[in-house]
Amino acid sequence: MVNPSRRALLTSLATAAMGPAILGRRAFAQNPPARVDAMALRRRIEGLSMFGRPSGGTFADGVSRVAYSDADVEGRRYVIDLMRAAGLDPRVDPAGNIFGRRAGSEASLPPILFGSHIDSVPNGGNFDGDLGSLAALGVIEALAAANLRTRHPVEMVVWVNEEGVAFTQGFDGSRAVAGDRKPAEMDQVWNGTTRADATRKIGGDPSRIMEAIRPRGAHHCYLELHIEQGGNLERQGIPVGVVEGIVAIDRFEVTITGFANHAGTTAMADRQDALLAASHLTVAVRQAVSSEPGRQVGTVGHLEVTPNAVNVIPGIVRLTIELRDLSPEKLTRLAERIRVRATEIARETKTSIEFTSSSHSLPAIAAVEVQRAIEQSAGRLSLGTRRMPSGAGHDAQIMAQLSPMGMVFVPSVGGISHSPRELTHWDDCARGADVLLGAVLEMDRV
Amino acid sequence: MVNPSRRALLTSLATAAMGPAILGRRAFAQNPPARVDAMALRRRIEGLSMFGRPSGGTFADGVSRVAYSDADVEGRRYVIDLMRAAGLDPRVDPAGNIFGRRAGSEASLPPILFGSHIDSVPNGGNFDGDLGSLAALGVIEALAAANLRTRHPVEMVVWVNEEGVAFTQGFDGSRAVAGDRKPAEMDQVWNGTTRADATRKIGGDPSRIMEAIRPRGAHHCYLELHIEQGGNLERQGIPVGVVEGIVAIDRFEVTITGFANHAGTTAMADRQDALLAASHLTVAVRQAVSSEPGRQVGTVGHLEVTPNAVNVIPGIVRLTIELRDLSPEKLTRLAERIRVRATEIARETKTSIEFTSSSHSLPAIAAVEVQRAIEQSAGRLSLGTRRMPSGAGHDAQIMAQLSPMGMVFVPSVGGISHSPRELTHWDDCARGADVLLGAVLEMDRV
Repeated sequence: MVNPSRRALLTSLATAAMGPAILGRRAFAQNPPARVDAMALRRRIEGLSMFGRPSGGTFADGVSRVAYSDADVEGRRYVIDLMRAAGLDPRVDPAGNIFGRRAGSEASLPPILFGSHIDSVPNGGNFDGDLGSLAALGVIEALAAANLRTRHPVEMVVWVNEEGVAFTQGFDGSRAVAGDRKPAEMDQVWNGTTRADATRKIGGDPSRIMEAIRPRGAHHCYLELHIEQGGNLERQGIPVGVVEGIVAIDRFEVTITGFANHAGTTAMADRQDALLAASHLTVAVRQAVSSEPGRQVGTVGHLEVTPNAVNVIPGIVRLTIELRDLSPEKLTRLAERIRVRATEIARETKTSIEFTSSSHSLPAIAAVEVQRAIEQSAGRLSLGTRRMPSGAGHDAQIMAQLSPMGMVFVPSVGGISHSPRELTHWDDCARGADVLLGAVLEMDRV
Repeated sequence: MVNPSRRALLTSLATAAMGPAILGRRAFAQNPPARVDAMALRRRIEGLSMFGRPSGGTFADGVSRVAYSDADVEGRRYVIDLMRAAGLDPRVDPAGNIFGRRAGSEASLPPILFGSHIDSVPNGGNFDGDLGSLAALGVIEALAAANLRTRHPVEMVVWVNEEGVAFTQGFDGSRAVAGDRKPAEMDQVWNGTTRADATRKIGGDPSRIMEAIRPRGAHHCYLELHIEQGGNLERQGIPVGVVEGIVAIDRFEVTITGFANHAGTTAMADRQDALLAASHLTVAVRQAVSSEPGRQVGTVGHLEVTPNAVNVIPGIVRLTIELRDLSPEKLTRLAERIRVRATEIARETKTSIEFTSSSHSLPAIAAVEVQRAIEQSAGRLSLGTRRMPSGAGHDAQIMAQLSPMGMVFVPSVGGISHSPRELTHWDDCARGADVLLGAVLEMDRV
């Protein structure tokens, strides 16, 4: 976080700076000094979509560019080539993150970091991560094209394995930078490959993974443009979402044990039907989550029945419950409500219901000054904004450990993501990139 | 069905018959003329349990003797050897059914047929089918030991593939006898083997499958002793169940289509959660089945979620609904009630719910005279009885197409079946065998 006295100093320095490349506060406030090349952004998103595109498919068929795959390696090369063409000197850190930095006018200042990822889920879309990564490049090019010299260095980043399909844990790149990786995990095997080999495959160096670490305060701030992945902005006709924070997530694995018996010979009153209990519990999750106002969500996404035969009463059901909200206290309250109801359900259905907490993450709050910078940037472009939580996880939540963080959301058509049908209109992509650019400049002045 | 005038004639003939082997009505009513060897029955059930027993296991570890398997072939050989030792001349028909006949005193009369099956489900128990098959042998031995000559021939049978694990359709043997098999189905493949090869493996002749057919009226009646597979008899302390009929079964495959979306970014109000809809539907099945008195049952036994990930709202759920009752009209009524509720659920959850009828079987009603014969037999042994439907399917339902049919049920401990924990106390096994013997004699006299 930037403290007020430091901010005043920085602002006065910025205002006092000389030359055409540095704008005074007044001129800046009236007219955005640069715009991201919208056509180039679109062309590059389309170009990147080739790497991992289904054979014989089109852009609309989405992409499978799982981290560390051949498609990922090719996509990374495509982005590195674009960075070189833009005059950057791309650097791959030991975790495999791609960085590209443009110097600022004050060598002692930490960089403003912004970017996203280009790995995808299998059968995913062409906007999740790609937009934020390629818009970051567009921002740096726009600054260069406008001959704008920022005070802070500006640095773009393409993070490794955000999605966490590979090795079933995400944020590999940002976690390495935040110091949340261990050398020992390089022995982990996924899909027949160790993490060490996977890291080498993308140009990283597993033996030096701890050298990827950056200290707290290494960045002036971190910014990320991303598609909303939900339907709120589109439905409300608002072009820009200002992320207040990334939600906490509580996950539970639930095992319901009844008794598998013959579906023809067991009277209804004698049954211990684990699926009936699971059904009541699934409805209870919905009811608990909807029992108070707010934007919390709760999902039973995974459910498995044993023995799962048409003529056998289900004996065991395993299911997952996931709860998300910015407030961990609210999550605790909802989970407790669900547990109380589960106890009743177990009694009513003559089953036992066991909860295991499988993961518990804290929320990452976006810095108020970064939220304001995004709103000011949007305001200069006459774009309406809405503050909102991010229900999805992003590398920004990891970067919040090192510096103030903020995110710009743009509308997802139909709220669809992680699907070939994922779509953000090109106009909205361009608006988001321009808001990112403005927010970088805004943060540069504080 | 035997008409009254024929019955009167047969009864007078029986009463008039000469010699020690044929008992008059009065003497017979007072004292059962023969008993099945209870120790031999137990020894043979234990002996048969060796074929398909888990390696290193005991009797309590159950059996996997799926039809047409090596274990089935070995078990069949064991039974055939026992039949030979008992002086029978076992005959394997083209379907693979094992028959053994003891002549009656009146050559023109059709046989009284009784038996069961020895195939099991995977990881099943040692009583389902085995009891009725080996008790049938015990009945014939008891008649021989008591030097009792029945008027009708008595014939035991061990049916092929009652369970229908192999080739996913049961009653192979009884359906062949009832004329419900087609030569073309011999090309069906299951587990890498054709039906033709499977049939040859157990000593059948696939090219002559139609020669297994017996005409309507081929049997005086069909009787089957079986474990209840439900918990009613044990709970009520009643040793003998008299089956009123085998229930009709209606099965539906249901596909619920919602929309798979991100579990973090999709607001609760925007969700089209197929699993939430499936949960409401599963509860609705329970409520509909419990909404009127009677012994009908209804089960959602199979349920599959797509994509089935902790962090994705379920987009598609496929599930099965099975309804059973002696009254097809009641089943139609319950299904309609469930469909009406499904329409509401679809609207409430913004999903679509499609029903497909996957099977529809009619009930098989036990002949009243056979039910009475079983009750009289039990009465002579001072055993209480209860009339009840069979919620499970049995070869008896197929045999009902050819002649009057009846079944004797004995208690299943805890109502458990299709499990290694399946258990019927040896005393109950012996009682059931004696009731079967008495019912054979009772039917012989009408």
